Amino acid sequence: MNFEDDTIVALATPAGVGAISVIRISGSNSISTVDNIFEGKYKLSNSVTHTIHYGKIIDENKELIDDVLVSIFKKPNSYTGEESVEISTHGSSLITQKIIQTLLKQNIRLAEPGEFTKRAFLNGRIDLAQAEAVADLINSRTEASFRGARNQLDGLLSKKVGDLRNKLITASSLIELELDFAEEDLEFVSKKEVIKLIDEIILEIDQLLKTYKFGKVLRDGVNVAIVGKPNVGKSSLLNYILKESRAIVSHIPGTTRDVIREEVSIDGILFRLFDTAGIRSSSDEIEKEGISRSQIAVKNADIVLFLNDVTEGFSANLYNQLLELTSKDRVIIVLNKIDINPGESFSGDIKISAITGFGIGNLFTLMKEKVIGSNSYTEKSAIISSIRHYDALRKTLEQLKSAKKSVENKMSGEFVSTYLRSAEDFLGEIIGIVSSDDILNNIFSKFCIGK
Amino acid sequence: MNFEDDTIVALATPAGVGAISVIRISGSNSISTVDNIFEGKYKLSNSVTHTIHYGKIIDENKELIDDVLVSIFKKPNSYTGEESVEISTHGSSLITQKIIQTLLKQNIRLAEPGEFTKRAFLNGRIDLAQAEAVADLINSRTEASFRGARNQLDGLLSKKVGDLRNKLITASSLIELELDFAEEDLEFVSKKEVIKLIDEIILEIDQLLKTYKFGKVLRDGVNVAIVGKPNVGKSSLLNYILKESRAIVSHIPGTTRDVIREEVSIDGILFRLFDTAGIRSSSDEIEKEGISRSQIAVKNADIVLFLNDVTEGFSANLYNQLLELTSKDRVIIVLNKIDINPGESFSGDIKISAITGFGIGNLFTLMKEKVIGSNSYTEKSAIISSIRHYDALRKTLEQLKSAKKSVENKMSGEFVSTYLRSAEDFLGEIIGIVSSDDILNNIFSKFCIGK
Repeated sequence: MNFEDDTIVALATPAGVGAISVIRISGSNSISTVDNIFEGKYKLSNSVTHTIHYGKIIDENKELIDDVLVSIFKKPNSYTGEESVEISTHGSSLITQKIIQTLLKQNIRLAEPGEFTKRAFLNGRIDLAQAEAVADLINSRTEASFRGARNQLDGLLSKKVGDLRNKLITASSLIELELDFAEEDLEFVSKKEVIKLIDEIILEIDQLLKTYKFGKVLRDGVNVAIVGKPNVGKSSLLNYILKESRAIVSHIPGTTRDVIREEVSIDGILFRLFDTAGIRSSSDEIEKEGISRSQIAVKNADIVLFLNDVTEGFSANLYNQLLELTSKDRVIIVLNKIDINPGESFSGDIKISAITGFGIGNLFTLMKEKVIGSNSYTEKSAIISSIRHYDALRKTLEQLKSAKKSVENKMSGEFVSTYLRSAEDFLGEIIGIVSSDDILNNIFSKFCIGK
Repeated sequence: MNFEDDTIVALATPAGVGAISVIRISGSNSISTVDNIFEGKYKLSNSVTHTIHYGKIIDENKELIDDVLVSIFKKPNSYTGEESVEISTHGSSLITQKIIQTLLKQNIRLAEPGEFTKRAFLNGRIDLAQAEAVADLINSRTEASFRGARNQLDGLLSKKVGDLRNKLITASSLIELELDFAEEDLEFVSKKEVIKLIDEIILEIDQLLKTYKFGKVLRDGVNVAIVGKPNVGKSSLLNYILKESRAIVSHIPGTTRDVIREEVSIDGILFRLFDTAGIRSSSDEIEKEGISRSQIAVKNADIVLFLNDVTEGFSANLYNQLLELTSKDRVIIVLNKIDINPGESFSGDIKISAITGFGIGNLFTLMKEKVIGSNSYTEKSAIISSIRHYDALRKTLEQLKSAKKSVENKMSGEFVSTYLRSAEDFLGEIIGIVSSDDILNNIFSKFCIGK
């Protein structure tokens, strides 16, 4: 681990006009550096931690930049675990730029994306899974995704992974204890006992892996493309969903030629709805553009709502074209206008009326099942939502299975031990007990600057 | 003055995703109310002022919303002069919304725009001119406008107005002293002395009024429309200015049919440059739209740069059309392409080459003179930049002139006194010694919420 003790600075609040902005500084020279450009009642260096000081920030020409509040955090009681300072200024990018410029002329550099949180991790304030949850928390847009990130930040996943890792360590200690006395040819541990322990861990990791589908949906949301012939009721369905869903997250209007995108939160899951114009080929240049966008929307969709008009019959041609763009298991065949023709109908997954709202509740349930299955996880269990965690768990599982096979095949304890240690490492990667610069850079480069 | 002692809350940092957000609470119940939703090591109510406390914000169902830092400010040592709290959260609008919603269920209401600063004024932390400067400071986009607002916030204008008002009070005291002894028919004060004092004040107010043109330009910037026949070099000039100016503030691209707008800072003054498409009538619908926008740009321009090609001659027709949209004294006649034809030329205000840059420096000087005259104010003098201040000073001046006339005409001291008191009130309006709900609402409603 290549941890530099530079003092770093960044704007911590969103850019734009507001009442106040906050500049964050962290590193061993934070307080003394800010003292150089600060005029207050007392020296900041003489102040105790967690105190706030009114004063003036002056530039190198002794010109006043702003009157500010400076908050002091002494090591280790700060977000980063280092000595830190927060400067609360009048909310103006001109002012924050001037102050940051002035600080950069001191022995301070601009922070990299996520560097404050990275330091919090490196200084042991939070583990890696928790650090990742900070970014998820900031980016969460629905109640459930927020709750999921919140619980990961609170250590729900970290505790689960830590517990599993402790069990693993117990198992490998048993094996290694036996190795130490290998010459004496004693069998301290019954093979059965070790296999039982490994099986337990395998089961729990299996269960954790199964939460990924749910966790990913929770974190990233679901893309839904609404496809159907003209006048089949696509816009009516979209409008009904918007009206019925608990929360409309955003509304991005488009022209009829564009793909219209709306975001709604249904049971805390973010559904991005794309009302497509058409997926058939056309010779009109502008129409072509719209069709190409619709095709992309279908290709990227986790769910395709394929709308049919029960008074018109099933659009077999369009369905076949659809299956060229996406797989069958992603498509929900929706029969609309059931209010007009409730009797006669053909085969489909669900019957609805986008006018009366009949069947829309069932459609929501079907959509949820399609993406997360019928499993009843809640965001309050330990769940995984990151592909990095998924991969690490999958690799852990592989090693455990190899370890189990080695025991069963009565191979030398050294093999078993190697597999178990390797499994331990993969688990450790999740919470950052084992990490590399590559892993860390990959994680923190996705953060915003100032976090 | 109708000052309510409600406790108020608002988001103080800009909306959007960032590392942290700050929620501001002010009013007599601030600390105890936040205590109701805060779980920390100690009760906030038992903490001393200007301290920071780590803890958790929980909602009414005891669910954790976020782990936060809470800053405590006890009366009168806060921005508003009241007991105040700042909650620093993870930067997410979902989190800040949840916390504000939870607070609103307590005995707290959402702050009105500018209400924190209004309270700072009502509690005597700053005067009215300073309060207005807070908004100007936040909105300032160039160095000079920032410096102007900064000095007004620091009390440069307030001190000047206060001094003038004190002089006025001296004058009216002299008059009123005489009134008290009116029956004894004594003349305590020589008329000359009073007139001299009034003249001094009139002169100073006159000088202050003259700064308005400069102050307004500093605060609001200058609109510049660039007009000329096709191929006369409008875009070349715009590009050269962008390259030459000290700072490009923003760049709003448009198509050729639109008005292109660029913002540059020249000597700290914000110039908004509009490259117009054409101002002549057209039958093409889309072109019509562009022309109508260009005409609006010309009408709103403080300066019109009327570009002519020296190799083509003066566009007399277009000049006449231009004068139907704006007044002659706003137009600068620019002769371009002087590099191609340096010898032969016709009459204009300035010769330039948008290719070599010849004359552009002089053009800048001319533009500055056009809007602020040749007066050499600096933003470090007391200057006025607000129409409200200008009006109040103008009314003060009227009253002073009436007072002077009354003295000269040997009218009763009561008349003189009434005029002087009225002048005092108008001056007092600037710094808020005299104010009304209307004045205050008008000022603070223009602030953002949270300030």
